[in-house]
Amino acid sequence: MRLPSSDRLSSRQARIRQSLDVLSLQAFIVTSPSNIRYLSNHVGTSGVLVVTADTVYLLVDARYREAVSMLQRTASACPGLVVWDVPESYDEALVACLGETGASSIGFEAAHVTVDRYHSWQATMTRRGVTAELRTTARIVEQARVVKDAAEVAVLREAAERLTPVAAAAFEAVRVGQSERGVAAVIEAALRQAGYERPAFDTIVASGPHAALPHHRAGERMLAAGDLVVLDFGGVLDGYCSDLTRTRSVGAPSAEARQLHAAVLAAQQSAIEAVRSGAETTVVDAAARDVLRDRGLGDAFGHGTGHGLGLDIHEEPRITWPRPDVASVRLESGMVVTIEPGAYVPGFGGVRIEDDILVTDAGCEVLTRVSRELRWA
Amino acid sequence: MRLPSSDRLSSRQARIRQSLDVLSLQAFIVTSPSNIRYLSNHVGTSGVLVVTADTVYLLVDARYREAVSMLQRTASACPGLVVWDVPESYDEALVACLGETGASSIGFEAAHVTVDRYHSWQATMTRRGVTAELRTTARIVEQARVVKDAAEVAVLREAAERLTPVAAAAFEAVRVGQSERGVAAVIEAALRQAGYERPAFDTIVASGPHAALPHHRAGERMLAAGDLVVLDFGGVLDGYCSDLTRTRSVGAPSAEARQLHAAVLAAQQSAIEAVRSGAETTVVDAAARDVLRDRGLGDAFGHGTGHGLGLDIHEEPRITWPRPDVASVRLESGMVVTIEPGAYVPGFGGVRIEDDILVTDAGCEVLTRVSRELRWA
Repeated sequence: MRLPSSDRLSSRQARIRQSLDVLSLQAFIVTSPSNIRYLSNHVGTSGVLVVTADTVYLLVDARYREAVSMLQRTASACPGLVVWDVPESYDEALVACLGETGASSIGFEAAHVTVDRYHSWQATMTRRGVTAELRTTARIVEQARVVKDAAEVAVLREAAERLTPVAAAAFEAVRVGQSERGVAAVIEAALRQAGYERPAFDTIVASGPHAALPHHRAGERMLAAGDLVVLDFGGVLDGYCSDLTRTRSVGAPSAEARQLHAAVLAAQQSAIEAVRSGAETTVVDAAARDVLRDRGLGDAFGHGTGHGLGLDIHEEPRITWPRPDVASVRLESGMVVTIEPGAYVPGFGGVRIEDDILVTDAGCEVLTRVSRELRWA
Repeated sequence: MRLPSSDRLSSRQARIRQSLDVLSLQAFIVTSPSNIRYLSNHVGTSGVLVVTADTVYLLVDARYREAVSMLQRTASACPGLVVWDVPESYDEALVACLGETGASSIGFEAAHVTVDRYHSWQATMTRRGVTAELRTTARIVEQARVVKDAAEVAVLREAAERLTPVAAAAFEAVRVGQSERGVAAVIEAALRQAGYERPAFDTIVASGPHAALPHHRAGERMLAAGDLVVLDFGGVLDGYCSDLTRTRSVGAPSAEARQLHAAVLAAQQSAIEAVRSGAETTVVDAAARDVLRDRGLGDAFGHGTGHGLGLDIHEEPRITWPRPDVASVRLESGMVVTIEPGAYVPGFGGVRIEDDILVTDAGCEVLTRVSRELRWA
């Protein structure tokens, strides 16, 4: 697996430390696995990072000790790393580590810590006499992650391009007599064959009436002639996600199916044309949504137009309509996002078309390279 | 997909309402997806449940509306369900719903709500003039889930038994010239073939020195003669998880490999013999741990002996040594747990052997039916 170099990690850590300075935090507890990986190259479902002005403490239990030791002997070693052993409780070890740092004001990721865990930290600090103030922080690492560096773009491009043969295998499998799960199995085998380390999310194969359910996975239903089939899949390459949706017809599509597909395709094209550095996310969303509304499909498109893509399958920015709970942001060169409008008609079926897009100064580059046709030529 | 009947859901909801009565809560916010599914049959990554004395509110956005509507027309419909539409923000919709209930004391799942979300709820309640008290709760639904009912045991038994042909395919694939990822691909194709809806977790194929890393996944390493290969995989059937680990040798095993395998096998047998209704989890753990310690492998076994299995791959109870942060509990008839001791020798490799076990009054029933041999006969 290619991992960022130690120099790259140093740059990332420096940027985080600038944020900590601005917030007058002497230490920062990182608990999101993707954020931990971004700053340290440590891959795992456990582990906690504590970043101070000169040290990165990685708290891990015995299961990860050897893996960390191996990583530190490579060119991707985490700079300034001190491995802090967790013999039993992560919360106990964390509080001991925080005490060791001497920090008086400590930030934590409020979006990645449960109320339960926060209360446990507070109680443990009181019991151990660690008197520092714990302060909520928002999006410190996420903001750094939203614009990808050149090495990340290279991996994301390759992750997107490797979907081409996977899609070809999926299209071949879409035929009468095949089940949704059978198609999913073909897709997942092709993902492995293409060199991905794992699927990026649960593969979706939604056929016939199931295609009207945006988050149906893959069930026992057998594909039938005339079905629309929504295929939504992706793989993880060197930690980075790809995400593609195509909608295919089993045999000849009906006039209604062709119309629905053409409308979503036009909406997607419109949104892709709106993507450029400086464009507001709500404007990109409107570019897709207006096309569908003009064709009488406004109510059939109930989700956002896209999302950022990176170490997580759903990252910032969210590309959606103006909402009180979602900040509209301006796209920047180096962001990677999906554009995936859809239209869902209960009882009939649905269409979604999704590509992975790199934002550039001039406009954008579509990273996924797969035919958007409804039928196999 | 088989789903519990409406009657079964009624029983589960009644039990939760008893807990709410004891705690003097008029409403209970459920945010864990597995807990939501357990009480309502709603399957999805979004959605919030609010349980009151006579109603179960399910808050969902447009993506799930049609799926819920389909579910409610079946024999597995959620009793007392009111679907509460979420046009944009889940937090806004939740607070509106809480206001509608008129509840003055409202519980939430402290282990499944982030500090960020909790603060958002509080701010939204203040803004909308909803004055109820929010109170943390712990393990209300998890406690109900820990002992499986007859229908759940039937599914878990089948989920475990279907691993037999998957393991056979995996064993066939363990040979010189195959990569870890190649073996993982064989396993995942076999999981689909066996009828599982998806893998229960990222498949682990850890060969040679990687076998010393308990949480290695599957990489590009090619299997070599003499390697130990740890294979850890499982599938989800009708929502319930199976989980199996076997360790195989590539070709003839060395004396050291055979010794390590024999030690772990003896430890596993000892723990399985200790499993029965009424046994303390720490005693079951010690049964495995003592065997390894007596063979000089105490330091090589750094993780717990097992965990509960159900809708989640890791559930209560945890089977581990006496720890301040983990309650030792008595096993009860109807619990389903894994027993999975291991021994890891940095630089050399490792062994882990894991089965899924149903606790019974008389002792236990091993649900997984796969040879534990180090070599293919």
